[in-house]
Amino acid sequence: MCRWLVYSGPPIHLDTVLFEPENSLINQSLHARLGASATNGDGFGIGWYGDRPAPGQFRDVLPAWNDDNLRSVAEQISSPLFFAHVRASTGTATSRSNCHPFRHASWLFMHNGRIGGFDRIRRELEMCIDPALYAARLGTTDSEALFYLMLTHGLDADPPGATRKAVAQVLALMAAAGTKEPFRLTAAASDGRRTVAIRYSSDAASPSLFYGRPALAGLDGGGGEPPIMILSEPLDADGETWIEVPEGHAVLLEDGEITVLAFSPDEPVMAPVRASA
Amino acid sequence: MCRWLVYSGPPIHLDTVLFEPENSLINQSLHARLGASATNGDGFGIGWYGDRPAPGQFRDVLPAWNDDNLRSVAEQISSPLFFAHVRASTGTATSRSNCHPFRHASWLFMHNGRIGGFDRIRRELEMCIDPALYAARLGTTDSEALFYLMLTHGLDADPPGATRKAVAQVLALMAAAGTKEPFRLTAAASDGRRTVAIRYSSDAASPSLFYGRPALAGLDGGGGEPPIMILSEPLDADGETWIEVPEGHAVLLEDGEITVLAFSPDEPVMAPVRASA
Amino acid sequence: MCRWLVYSGPPIHLDTVLFEPENSLINQSLHARLGASATNGDGFGIGWYGDRPAPGQFRDVLPAWNDDNLRSVAEQISSPLFFAHVRASTGTATSRSNCHPFRHASWLFMHNGRIGGFDRIRRELEMCIDPALYAARLGTTDSEALFYLMLTHGLDADPPGATRKAVAQVLALMAAAGTKEPFRLTAAASDGRRTVAIRYSSDAASPSLFYGRPALAGLDGGGGEPPIMILSEPLDADGETWIEVPEGHAVLLEDGEITVLAFSPDEPVMAPVRASA
Amino acid sequence: MCRWLVYSGPPIHLDTVLFEPENSLINQSLHARLGASATNGDGFGIGWYGDRPAPGQFRDVLPAWNDDNLRSVAEQISSPLFFAHVRASTGTATSRSNCHPFRHASWLFMHNGRIGGFDRIRRELEMCIDPALYAARLGTTDSEALFYLMLTHGLDADPPGATRKAVAQVLALMAAAGTKEPFRLTAAASDGRRTVAIRYSSDAASPSLFYGRPALAGLDGGGGEPPIMILSEPLDADGETWIEVPEGHAVLLEDGEITVLAFSPDEPVMAPVRASA
Repeated sequence: MCRWLVYSGPPIHLDTVLFEPENSLINQSLHARLGASATNGDGFGIGWYGDRPAPGQFRDVLPAWNDDNLRSVAEQISSPLFFAHVRASTGTATSRSNCHPFRHASWLFMHNGRIGGFDRIRRELEMCIDPALYAARLGTTDSEALFYLMLTHGLDADPPGATRKAVAQVLALMAAAGTKEPFRLTAAASDGRRTVAIRYSSDAASPSLFYGRPALAGLDGGGGEPPIMILSEPLDADGETWIEVPEGHAVLLEDGEITVLAFSPDEPVMAPVRASA
Repeated sequence: MCRWLVYSGPPIHLDTVLFEPENSLINQSLHARLGASATNGDGFGIGWYGDRPAPGQFRDVLPAWNDDNLRSVAEQISSPLFFAHVRASTGTATSRSNCHPFRHASWLFMHNGRIGGFDRIRRELEMCIDPALYAARLGTTDSEALFYLMLTHGLDADPPGATRKAVAQVLALMAAAGTKEPFRLTAAASDGRRTVAIRYSSDAASPSLFYGRPALAGLDGGGGEPPIMILSEPLDADGETWIEVPEGHAVLLEDGEITVLAFSPDEPVMAPVRASA
Repeated sequence: MCRWLVYSGPPIHLDTVLFEPENSLINQSLHARLGASATNGDGFGIGWYGDRPAPGQFRDVLPAWNDDNLRSVAEQISSPLFFAHVRASTGTATSRSNCHPFRHASWLFMHNGRIGGFDRIRRELEMCIDPALYAARLGTTDSEALFYLMLTHGLDADPPGATRKAVAQVLALMAAAGTKEPFRLTAAASDGRRTVAIRYSSDAASPSLFYGRPALAGLDGGGGEPPIMILSEPLDADGETWIEVPEGHAVLLEDGEITVLAFSPDEPVMAPVRASA
Repeated sequence: MCRWLVYSGPPIHLDTVLFEPENSLINQSLHARLGASATNGDGFGIGWYGDRPAPGQFRDVLPAWNDDNLRSVAEQISSPLFFAHVRASTGTATSRSNCHPFRHASWLFMHNGRIGGFDRIRRELEMCIDPALYAARLGTTDSEALFYLMLTHGLDADPPGATRKAVAQVLALMAAAGTKEPFRLTAAASDGRRTVAIRYSSDAASPSLFYGRPALAGLDGGGGEPPIMILSEPLDADGETWIEVPEGHAVLLEDGEITVLAFSPDEPVMAPVRASA
């Protein structure tokens, strides 16, 4: 059910991260180790921050494992902050508009999981989207709808707070519809400066999520800050690098600092429970 | 701005109609003669009635003029009633979900034209769709939204009446939003038994629409009923076959009979003003 | 490394065979049980005989498991003889031209396996193709090259014999190039009347292949001939229906009769060693 | 019949060149002014030199005029030397492998025109390709075959000379086959340092080709070298910027210098007939 990663650190060529590690994201598109489905071949996407105001976005419906354009673009693009996602559809159509990451102004967003019984609340959920943002929704996924809900709740002003309110609103709609299926997610959003990732599910059975400061080839090793990654599954078997994000927690990334917070839709976002790693 | 055709008559191989005429629909995808744009290369689609309860549907984002799958499928499929459409996008994304014809239960629908200022009323328009139908909307076009509005207004019970009410509702939403741009359409809907096509625009400048009973190769010439076609532009230069559908009129097709009616969103659908040709 | 099936019998809607069985070919595209790779998501294709001289052909680069066009076309098409294939690429590019089945005149051909070290002998192999056929080769796979070699060796006149000579020629080229890797195949070819399938590998480790006369829903059960299928893996767990094609054997299908023959590139095709099942 | 451009100069974002001019290449994909066909919607491609040894390459079968990935990638990529091409197929299949520019090691190549009667000489032509390069040919176009012929004749050592020999060899094969149709081309090849473009046809009726030093927004205007472009048709109506490349001439680009030479397949490449503009 999808796999994704965020990279934040010194500029690096995307292929170093996407293709080269032992359990690279491209490898996970064909043989994910920790996901609900081993195969994530219903499309892929990357979003990356460069020297333009808005991030770049490149998405396609083909499996990531065999796409020459993805490899070529990843080889040529160097970025200090990027998102990458490989998709296993949970029901909505396979189209470029339904591939992650989604982009709005300077924001990128991607998601692994699903809003249970989405079809039953889709209409109400879409009605909660700020009318001024509504026309910007280009696809039909629950993921993109959640993104626009987060934007509606003030993602610009308070990323963790807006995420919490959006999740709470979805849960309220699900409760009102009598939905039994869970709402599960790991997700990440960024505006190029601040990044928030969360791991939360209404039944506390979230997809996997990790973070860490990997040593990667291709970086200038001379004293620079090690990069930070937040990702669905570790890129390798190095047990010391990768730290699991606990259920019901959020990870904030800003200025090279990681902060881990408890996350609950019912409570305002708490003060950090763990300092940056 | 799109070209389409409906065929109704003795079963015929689709390629006879789609590929062979001098000004075939495939030709119109590259060199339309009467359309707003000569090129209609933003996707294509066919829908056809066969021996299953629901019609078949085959859509793709590639230009129709070079698609080997379309040619092969058209060569092999024989049908007594089918829709075909080549798309010139008016803004919404190019994806299979946004290609015509759209399908719902036994209904097919396609459209040439646009709802002026759609982005401004999209949210309200989608809210008018029957909640029970809402989740069936797979794309983001104004055309598909109109289709679901027609279904909401009882397309099954009264095709021309439902079409009129849906068009009227769209116009009301546009007026409330202060929209200046026109609402233009030629469109067709069918459930395999009854077909309705309309040519109407709020500024009386609709795209072209014709109907007629062409002589086509590949039909059993022995005394059978000649087929009926409703289409954006004539397949050839035979001035005697093709009759223009006047502005503000609808064409009904049922049991081999054509009826032409005045169409106005403000009035209930009138009794026929012209007997079948 | 690909999965395929041949159906021959009373006309049946393709979806009955492709989608409905417990271990349908569509299921095998995502979770093959006996193939070298569980995932066969590098494209798919169908070829079917109808009422036109040449068979229909529909191929695409998307995974079969999520393609709405494939489902819709399969629901609508009824055929007495058809091929279906889901692809796991062995190196050549993902393009429609490289998807199976390949088509030439009335022939269809598909393949599971690979010509070891193909790149080293590709040029020589392509030079063995009859110049009159050469321009018909639309892709770059070893599979399609083998097909054109079979046509060159007289597939029309003697299907098993031409297959044997083509395989022998490939082996000779491989030997001349000092190739260590094996030449493995299960493959099927048909002209709509005669069908030949083979299971042969130079290292006797061929992909799986079965045949049988399954009871399928959707057929007129009243006394008609049961259909015959030749396929990479059984559609269900019915041990009585499915018979394994032994290593180094060919299956001939004509007029509802199955004949199993020993197959060796070194020997002319032998008289049947086993009567039809 | 295709349109293309080469940019060489200070690094510039690709979208400045591809999307913004009045008669941009994207515009030419839908409404070319000087091409054999107004529509060039059978795919597109870009190749660009960056900080990796090999150039990047991004090609797709969709029309360029509506591809969000192309726009996004072009907005984010800055390059001092890039190729861009929009395709109108002359018969060969629409696949990514058949889109230009083609890439081999550090070389890029693109072509507008066709080898007349290609199907009749395709086999012989492909046999002239250096066996060591043969397996690198990924598609089936006459254009890519010409590229590999140029590489075979020493494109690395002597770009204009190798081009001349390749063209001469094609003409010889055409003569031997009794081909009546012409061999027409404008084409460009580069290794990131040296660029050669030619305008030659056996019937002296080549597609259009121009070069010039345009003033483009987005460049650092402070005293830097103006860029050089070689392209199928001018980006705007500025008659002073764009100089037509005469029939039977080649343009060499190296270190910011343009040299125009007479080009004839029969003669070794002549000394420059005109100094750089």
